[in-house]
Amino acid sequence: MASPAEKAEVFRALHQRPGVLVLPNAWDVPSARVFEDAGFPAVATSSAGIMVSNGYPDGEKMPRRELLGVVARIAGRVAIPLSADVVSGYGRSTREVAATIEKVVRAGAVGVNIEDLRPTGEGLFRLEAQLRRLEAVRRAATASGVPLVINARTDAFRHAPGDEAARLQEAIRRARAYRDAGADCVYPMGLTDGGSIATFVEALRCPVNVMVRKGLPSLAELETLGVKRVSFGPSASYAALGLLKRVSRDVLDRRSFDSLLEGAISFDELNALAVARKNGLG
Amino acid sequence: MASPAEKAEVFRALHQRPGVLVLPNAWDVPSARVFEDAGFPAVATSSAGIMVSNGYPDGEKMPRRELLGVVARIAGRVAIPLSADVVSGYGRSTREVAATIEKVVRAGAVGVNIEDLRPTGEGLFRLEAQLRRLEAVRRAATASGVPLVINARTDAFRHAPGDEAARLQEAIRRARAYRDAGADCVYPMGLTDGGSIATFVEALRCPVNVMVRKGLPSLAELETLGVKRVSFGPSASYAALGLLKRVSRDVLDRRSFDSLLEGAISFDELNALAVARKNGLG
Repeated sequence: MASPAEKAEVFRALHQRPGVLVLPNAWDVPSARVFEDAGFPAVATSSAGIMVSNGYPDGEKMPRRELLGVVARIAGRVAIPLSADVVSGYGRSTREVAATIEKVVRAGAVGVNIEDLRPTGEGLFRLEAQLRRLEAVRRAATASGVPLVINARTDAFRHAPGDEAARLQEAIRRARAYRDAGADCVYPMGLTDGGSIATFVEALRCPVNVMVRKGLPSLAELETLGVKRVSFGPSASYAALGLLKRVSRDVLDRRSFDSLLEGAISFDELNALAVARKNGLG
Repeated sequence: MASPAEKAEVFRALHQRPGVLVLPNAWDVPSARVFEDAGFPAVATSSAGIMVSNGYPDGEKMPRRELLGVVARIAGRVAIPLSADVVSGYGRSTREVAATIEKVVRAGAVGVNIEDLRPTGEGLFRLEAQLRRLEAVRRAATASGVPLVINARTDAFRHAPGDEAARLQEAIRRARAYRDAGADCVYPMGLTDGGSIATFVEALRCPVNVMVRKGLPSLAELETLGVKRVSFGPSASYAALGLLKRVSRDVLDRRSFDSLLEGAISFDELNALAVARKNGLG
């Protein structure tokens, strides 16, 4: 079994290979284990996926202890590197953010996402405040002995003032500062058109993460644009719940169980997804 | 808002209407809320679904406290009646089984599934022992003030000795005894062919529950056979995880996000599934 420090380095190296790292986001143990079994080299959590699954809206309304409990369950049952989304870090002070990082590393994550949007609906953290928070993340990770892969998300493209061009420039300015403060990867939320992504990647010259959504260029195009990482975000939750909607309509309107039974896994497969793979590192 | 006692009576009455009650089994808050939004009149939990989602294999390895925590989360966010699967009741004594029932009613369930298979892999409980357990369930429910709808499952068709005919007869013998001990509905696990289901229903003359699986007669045929309730069992988990397997192959082999994005719900829809419906009783 690889140590957490080794896993973090394996995960970091996945950002340096040629091509794009596709990172699927899970919300519970079996969703993570399906991705591991399928052959993804690493897996992440979707905070929205986890929160909604447990009856909390997206944000930081789910207590940190519960969120990290889910992270620990998943980390305990996958052998591949796990990156955890910690929203804005669950802290009003850098000390609280550091405590979140210490706990998420202890839960078994070797990477984190942390964003610059205030959880209280008051818009973005000031750049300087977010830099102090990111420095606290790096310090806490170093103190924990795990070279955590930090993915710094900026919501400036959606929440900064000004027109689209001004917001793109603010996203670039923030992402550069986050990179220089120790982020391994930067994540411009909301950027979907090829031109803006190209501008952003060109300006950053470090690994850039984009999220899967309708309208995003294809994987081949993203690779050409120099994107190093594409994450699912909450889209696997969207897809699974979309399927349950179709199943419901099929049963209630057409009195058919076809969409429930077609393409399903078996009881034995389900049960095997509760526990770690027998052959260790997938 | 209906009281738990009223909801239990609403749920019981759903077993007395003409036709078949289709009961979808959920494993977390949004899966239950999708079913509620779609118009199902009641929802159940799948213990296998909940356990695997939380990293435990099916059985009673997931601590009762954690299982009931999930039941309470779901019950707190759906307005329709919720029936909870409590496996074999989490008890070696009738007193422990009664404690489980008291707690599951407090969690908000107005129905339960309880089976006669020992959780330890030692086969079926003796009939007399299971009758004492079911009597304890009814007493505990009465003491709690909720006329709990008890669905008594027998695994005799799969686990009793003898050939298929002998096992069917043992399933009938047990189900009749469970009905007479206060069960509202009986549930012969593993019965899928129309002939055996007809024999069973004819012999019982009380509501009978069967589980959706490949090879089960259609809903129209089940209705003709006199079946009153069809539950999904863990099949919605099987379907959702089957979809994630297809998504994984699509991404890894074909570098396409099509199956991830097609038929998915939106972020706003996901977030709305974390909380109770605004208009109360669906």
